[in-house]
Amino acid sequence: MDMLNRLEETIAERRKASPDASYVAKLHDRGLPVIARKFGEEAVEAVVAALSEDRQELVGEAADVLFHLLVMLGARDVTLSDVMAELERREGTSGIVEKASRSA
Amino acid sequence: MDMLNRLEETIAERRKASPDASYVAKLHDRGLPVIARKFGEEAVEAVVAALSEDRQELVGEAADVLFHLLVMLGARDVTLSDVMAELERREGTSGIVEKASRSA
Amino acid sequence: MDMLNRLEETIAERRKASPDASYVAKLHDRGLPVIARKFGEEAVEAVVAALSEDRQELVGEAADVLFHLLVMLGARDVTLSDVMAELERREGTSGIVEKASRSA
Amino acid sequence: MDMLNRLEETIAERRKASPDASYVAKLHDRGLPVIARKFGEEAVEAVVAALSEDRQELVGEAADVLFHLLVMLGARDVTLSDVMAELERREGTSGIVEKASRSA
Repeated sequence: MDMLNRLEETIAERRKASPDASYVAKLHDRGLPVIARKFGEEAVEAVVAALSEDRQELVGEAADVLFHLLVMLGARDVTLSDVMAELERREGTSGIVEKASRSA
Repeated sequence: MDMLNRLEETIAERRKASPDASYVAKLHDRGLPVIARKFGEEAVEAVVAALSEDRQELVGEAADVLFHLLVMLGARDVTLSDVMAELERREGTSGIVEKASRSA
Repeated sequence: MDMLNRLEETIAERRKASPDASYVAKLHDRGLPVIARKFGEEAVEAVVAALSEDRQELVGEAADVLFHLLVMLGARDVTLSDVMAELERREGTSGIVEKASRSA
Repeated sequence: MDMLNRLEETIAERRKASPDASYVAKLHDRGLPVIARKFGEEAVEAVVAALSEDRQELVGEAADVLFHLLVMLGARDVTLSDVMAELERREGTSGIVEKASRSA
């Protein structure tokens, strides 16, 4: 089982913990808007890190983005496997080419 | 090899294509600021989808976020494996607990 | 009457137009999630412009941010004057100092 | 002199203060990437507030967006009056109509 699947499982378990004991449980306790906000903030930090910080900073921000994306997906009962299936579907139906037709 | 690793490889290959033929090559041709902007915009779309759209919309936006995150990491020569190692490191050093000490 | 107040009035008028004839009416026709998304995307563009583009690019992106902020506020029936009153309230109650107590 | 102009002046004065005494000085001390990040985070909060919170929450987030936009502009030596001139220019050259030709 790879890292992201394991992280998804850990997050699902942490949701059941007490908000005092777990960051994930605390986020869920505060609700979906707070979860979405945290994901968006981490994404902004990754944008800034990509443009201004050292490589290691970007590594850390990308990890934060993935972590909070999984928390947000979990809060809407979307699984990592749903998203991977979508990426596979695009790959299968030449999705990347299809995407190329959008203006960059 | 799982989906994200395969996507990372595809993106690395597409970078070498002509900007006319490939969305990834076009993004790289326009430069890092445009790549970072696209990632940030997809993240905003995921935030909005998490709060307002149907589940399937969120699946699609999450796929867009992962795709553009990989493009942005590649543009800074950060690999998916660097990010997974960071997530693993946090896991090992009780990173999720460490994170819990931040205010949510 | 200053520029922003005039812009707020123009936006309120444009909402009543046909979505085919007016960008503002088209945004409203598509709904609040699309309006919020556009504002968020413009903000990301301003972040990137602040870090990477020439000064004039930032001027343009800041104008886009203000325009779409007013559209978004209007869609929730919040007026510019509500926001100015809030800024004035903070000024009055030493809000900037109060803000200073947050971690930057 | 209206609220935003006064706020712009206050921010310019605060920059000269000690980072320990002023939030604005602290932000400047930490540098442009941190300033851009804060603006981006406030924008995400406004997006989420527009979609999920009560009207008063949106008023507060919009005030935060304007405050941090002014800090970010100041850090790049862009004045509010530059941005107002750009909005006026668009108004004059039917900029809002021009904008309407973009896809919403």
